[in-house]
Amino acid sequence: MAKVTIAGLAQRLGISKASVSYALNGRAGVGPDTRERVLALAQELGWYPSSSARALSQARSETIGIVLLRDPEHVGSEPFYMSVLAGIEAVLSSRELNLMLRIVAPDGGGAPIVGGADVKPLAGPPAGRRDLAVYRRWAGESRVDGVLLFDEVRSDPRGPLLGSLGLPYVQVGGSAASGARGGSTTVDQSMDAATVTDALHSLGHRHFAYVSGPPDLAHEDLRSASLAAHARRLGMTLVTSASDYTAPDGEAATIAVMAGVAPGSEGFPTAIVYGNDLMAMGGLAALQRLGIPVPAQVSVVSWDDSIMCQFSSPPVAAMARNVTELGRQSALLLLNIIDGHAATNRAMPAGVLQHRSSLGAARP
Amino acid sequence: MAKVTIAGLAQRLGISKASVSYALNGRAGVGPDTRERVLALAQELGWYPSSSARALSQARSETIGIVLLRDPEHVGSEPFYMSVLAGIEAVLSSRELNLMLRIVAPDGGGAPIVGGADVKPLAGPPAGRRDLAVYRRWAGESRVDGVLLFDEVRSDPRGPLLGSLGLPYVQVGGSAASGARGGSTTVDQSMDAATVTDALHSLGHRHFAYVSGPPDLAHEDLRSASLAAHARRLGMTLVTSASDYTAPDGEAATIAVMAGVAPGSEGFPTAIVYGNDLMAMGGLAALQRLGIPVPAQVSVVSWDDSIMCQFSSPPVAAMARNVTELGRQSALLLLNIIDGHAATNRAMPAGVLQHRSSLGAARP
Repeated sequence: MAKVTIAGLAQRLGISKASVSYALNGRAGVGPDTRERVLALAQELGWYPSSSARALSQARSETIGIVLLRDPEHVGSEPFYMSVLAGIEAVLSSRELNLMLRIVAPDGGGAPIVGGADVKPLAGPPAGRRDLAVYRRWAGESRVDGVLLFDEVRSDPRGPLLGSLGLPYVQVGGSAASGARGGSTTVDQSMDAATVTDALHSLGHRHFAYVSGPPDLAHEDLRSASLAAHARRLGMTLVTSASDYTAPDGEAATIAVMAGVAPGSEGFPTAIVYGNDLMAMGGLAALQRLGIPVPAQVSVVSWDDSIMCQFSSPPVAAMARNVTELGRQSALLLLNIIDGHAATNRAMPAGVLQHRSSLGAARP
Repeated sequence: MAKVTIAGLAQRLGISKASVSYALNGRAGVGPDTRERVLALAQELGWYPSSSARALSQARSETIGIVLLRDPEHVGSEPFYMSVLAGIEAVLSSRELNLMLRIVAPDGGGAPIVGGADVKPLAGPPAGRRDLAVYRRWAGESRVDGVLLFDEVRSDPRGPLLGSLGLPYVQVGGSAASGARGGSTTVDQSMDAATVTDALHSLGHRHFAYVSGPPDLAHEDLRSASLAAHARRLGMTLVTSASDYTAPDGEAATIAVMAGVAPGSEGFPTAIVYGNDLMAMGGLAALQRLGIPVPAQVSVVSWDDSIMCQFSSPPVAAMARNVTELGRQSALLLLNIIDGHAATNRAMPAGVLQHRSSLGAARP
């Protein structure tokens, strides 16, 4: 089947191209009978206005973009991204909008981040983030009507860039809106940190560890600071170790946290909180290797819930957040901004701690 | 920053639009000094040929499309898709190509598929698959240069449609190429079925169950037939139950398979093979609820491996296939076809059974 063009329709109907164009565009200059014949044939043959012609006439691309600055292989093992994509697609599909996706490996090819038993701020985002060129190009080529941003960092360069490119955006799970056409679906990390800390305190835990994701991520920065503040409020102590969201690195960070502290000694954490489910799985494996029973000696809590936490051994207590809904709300907010509404923030509900058997009372 | 146009460049440089166009397109009609000034300013301001203008001039969209005909929420919990997307993106990103993704819920909103203890062919794909309209539209609008197809069904309507639209395609993990511009990355389901059946037989299993995904999927059809053939070859018996790739449905199918058969009785399967990891997780939960120890009374094997199988209780034996590599090879094959090479099939390596503690000897 050759591509259906206005010229092709005109030829098949034996009328002028101008008449076909008038009919298809709902303009005067063609009789009602002809208009009906044109529309019927166009529908039958599957004619669509070429996206090129529409874009040249300033119409929208009907496409939303996402650029992930992550190692593609890591993205493949993180349930978070696919769940949030599901929510985004639910909105886009129902409106016949397209999603354009790009996964860009960071410069330096994913250097390993090894955590210590203290807060060790890692290097910030690599100089010359490779994702910025994609936004410039997409804007220059009119590929997308707006973009959804993930993994906000401190002093994130994307908001100012997108502002200068005139491209609407929404930071998914971000901290705050930062531009006239930039909004954010916000997650109250401090409230979630209070939920976790209060639960540990009520079970008798007084010293615990947090294995965070990369601390240059804004939400990890907020989580570490919030956990520390709530621990102080409750008279608890906390050690933090930075990891990279993978299971092997969660395993390494756990071994580092536990190195040289004997069960029952002063510095022995009776609970470890992990920034995501994959690191919690690695943590379970490390504790098993070290011969430390969960939760008898150490409780485990994951900040992300997923089916892995339900079926692990033991099942892992986790902060349940509706990640699919986060994707849905972020997409709806972006479509609002594209439609010309003022950019706003949209607060997401607080997480709910799912108590599972990895979380128990601290041994007195 | 306003969008950079040829007119804008011409105005800033005080030269004609034609001169700018000649310079940018590497054509004669403009002196070397002017050409250099134009190119320098274009680069500085971030000028890109508008995708609209390029498409109208028959250039490529530089975009590959994927339409998944699946409930978005299900896609969100299946590690398979994100892993294969990671491989696809690794290829596309390195060539600065875009991926356009659409997840279309099937008609009828994902009616539950309840398995029985026998092969029960379910209804075929819904009449008027909703994904076909997306391919028509993308072709009509010149949105994509080619598409990757997932979840091949018997008498799949997509090959013929894409052939008529002139759109290159590759069936990911398909059975065979079916068109001049359609290829396939093929997986030898019979060889993998032989690996599973032989492993069970060598451990003394003589009667086992297969909980399959939707049997209208071509690869599930092949797997069920291959397992049955290899079971016959080895003098084993097999019951098959259809499920829908979700954990709750894997749980329900397991309970149905076990209903009314006492351990040690004639019809009691000593092993259950699941079509994916999520159903295997549901199966573990069902067996635990039924008080059936794994693997002492029933062994569990998953056809898909993932991090869930490693960290479940007990860890689940699984067919390890390099799903990321499947994505990578599929993308490379599609780019070859788009570049005008003849469509071919590309055979993927056979799976390797990862022995984990869910798989043990049949109790004599």
